[in-house]
Amino acid sequence: MTVYLDHNATAPVRPEAKDAVVRALEVGGNPSSVHAAGRAARNLIETARQQVADLVGVKVGSVTFTSGGTESNALAIESAVAAGFDRIILGGTEHGAVGENVRAAKVPVALWPVNAEGVADLDWLKDELSKGGRPLVCLMLANNETGVIQPVAEASALVREAGGWLHVDAVQAAGKIAIDFTDLGADTLALAAHKIGGPFGSGALIAGTRSTVVRRLHGGGQERGRRAGAENLTGIAGFGAAAVAAVRDLPHVAEQARWRDAMQARVEEAGVVILGKGAPRLPQTLGFAAAGFDAQMQVMGMDLAGVMISAGPACSSGKMKPSEVVAAMGRADLAPFAVRISGGWTTTQDDWSRAGDAWLELYARHLSRRKEVA
Amino acid sequence: MTVYLDHNATAPVRPEAKDAVVRALEVGGNPSSVHAAGRAARNLIETARQQVADLVGVKVGSVTFTSGGTESNALAIESAVAAGFDRIILGGTEHGAVGENVRAAKVPVALWPVNAEGVADLDWLKDELSKGGRPLVCLMLANNETGVIQPVAEASALVREAGGWLHVDAVQAAGKIAIDFTDLGADTLALAAHKIGGPFGSGALIAGTRSTVVRRLHGGGQERGRRAGAENLTGIAGFGAAAVAAVRDLPHVAEQARWRDAMQARVEEAGVVILGKGAPRLPQTLGFAAAGFDAQMQVMGMDLAGVMISAGPACSSGKMKPSEVVAAMGRADLAPFAVRISGGWTTTQDDWSRAGDAWLELYARHLSRRKEVA
Repeated sequence: MTVYLDHNATAPVRPEAKDAVVRALEVGGNPSSVHAAGRAARNLIETARQQVADLVGVKVGSVTFTSGGTESNALAIESAVAAGFDRIILGGTEHGAVGENVRAAKVPVALWPVNAEGVADLDWLKDELSKGGRPLVCLMLANNETGVIQPVAEASALVREAGGWLHVDAVQAAGKIAIDFTDLGADTLALAAHKIGGPFGSGALIAGTRSTVVRRLHGGGQERGRRAGAENLTGIAGFGAAAVAAVRDLPHVAEQARWRDAMQARVEEAGVVILGKGAPRLPQTLGFAAAGFDAQMQVMGMDLAGVMISAGPACSSGKMKPSEVVAAMGRADLAPFAVRISGGWTTTQDDWSRAGDAWLELYARHLSRRKEVA
Repeated sequence: MTVYLDHNATAPVRPEAKDAVVRALEVGGNPSSVHAAGRAARNLIETARQQVADLVGVKVGSVTFTSGGTESNALAIESAVAAGFDRIILGGTEHGAVGENVRAAKVPVALWPVNAEGVADLDWLKDELSKGGRPLVCLMLANNETGVIQPVAEASALVREAGGWLHVDAVQAAGKIAIDFTDLGADTLALAAHKIGGPFGSGALIAGTRSTVVRRLHGGGQERGRRAGAENLTGIAGFGAAAVAAVRDLPHVAEQARWRDAMQARVEEAGVVILGKGAPRLPQTLGFAAAGFDAQMQVMGMDLAGVMISAGPACSSGKMKPSEVVAAMGRADLAPFAVRISGGWTTTQDDWSRAGDAWLELYARHLSRRKEVA
């Protein structure tokens, strides 16, 4: 039996989401058609819209379905720029889906530093906001590699005061901690179905009343004109079902903090550096670096031992690069050695212990080989 | 038992595609992850890429997966403009997914007229191309409302000679007639899974060796840098399986020309105008207009009789508008009365006869009501 501890790359699809996808596959109509099959399809989408709205505590009118987290982030950034926000303050450890779209936006970008624990510096933000302009501020809710939770509500108060637009990439936080859009004070917030146990290919952009979403894709008037193209019926239905299950399972995820901490103590004992140890973190994410032990070797060695983990973001077409997040935390020296272990709805306490066993054995072999070479 | 004759809006999902989706739901890995689950996911995507490549006779390297037909068309148009094509020649009956993205491209647009049968005028194209510049020419392979097949290969020869870029929206033609990308002479070609019996939310842009696809979405390096965002694993797997089945079923679709023609003869006898009657047409599409009989009334009346058909494109959020295609054919007077009946892989000869019966009965009631009023 293999152990899957790579939920931050993608969560296995939940049974509830599978059922919803299979039911949606049977509908056989285009949600924009007015006949019986079309209305049945439309009904599934609007049910899912309510389910996704409930995940983050908003009204259905705030939910625009997209093809995934990347498109949601791109749509938010493009909407803010179109609305006249003329510079961007970019969190220091944002995901590429935010960072690359920000760099493509053709407005000045200021990189917002994080401290050694990976937490964004609010004093720096205050100074930066005082420079004026109409800033779009991008701050993720939780980091994909370290699980570090950012002070979004605190940042929001500053951004509002400065007349800015706060975009929150909550792709990695959703389903792992409770999210309330209003409490966060975000203007826009991005979600992806596959990270919470829904299918790939579906996401949402949540937009508050202060923000106007533009269209990136032109054509039909779907999603009230915000996103052209036939809706991903099966993806959206699965997303909705996964959202309901994700909220229900939050206590199970919270419980994993203990299991994660137990493994953390074992690897720390062996001499690794825990990433973001002093910061608030997602309960099921453990990022660490063992100096001199190549991250790719760790991922492959663990895979051979039947435990699936990752090094850095999974999104770069299988090419593993040294972690930019670790570098942003001031430990570029450790970046080539950083790995991530992440649980989720499938994960048991035994998974975490087996991962700990496997990693310690792998590390011991690495150390003994290194001794031989020396 | 209801009759579904709205395949041009969307095809019910084929059993082969359902099976592929369900299998993909079980994989549980991110295609960009290097561990076992990730490699299994990657394998499904590359298998589907070959299947989609085979649908249009290209090599796998020509296939970029997208979130659907609208994104495929947008990607082609943006790629051509980014490559320096400085004006657009837009077919007179293009789908909104092409037309609206063309209008958003901020380069001059010339509208390429069609004749009374809905066929693009090649002499006009020759004249227009002689005006110089580097034109992007957008010509659909088959029209969604009338089924009229455009002279793409003939246009291609002219466009190549003029140094232009030919983009072909084949979303509606795929699975209904055989498509060979090379024979068509297209530079780019758009496909959507849901029109061939795959799931919603998946499409492809086919690009030849002369064209460079840019990225519209930024982030991860998926699709060899052409399209960021985690791949829609289930959607792509279903698309691939549907492509195989669609090619296999082409003879079944071709056979429907007889059934369609039988219904056509009956409604024509009743006095309607057949749209594109004299043009080459998809074998399973019948567009017609009964002057004075509101299209929305026809769709609703047929739905009550258990037969699902449509009026104009389905894509406009359930809002039915008079057909712009019919207006482009010089019959704006008939646009409010045009309906479309379209078969596909689920369709039997009996479906077509029942649709004919139901429509004639509905029409007779309409005429008698009109007589009473008069």
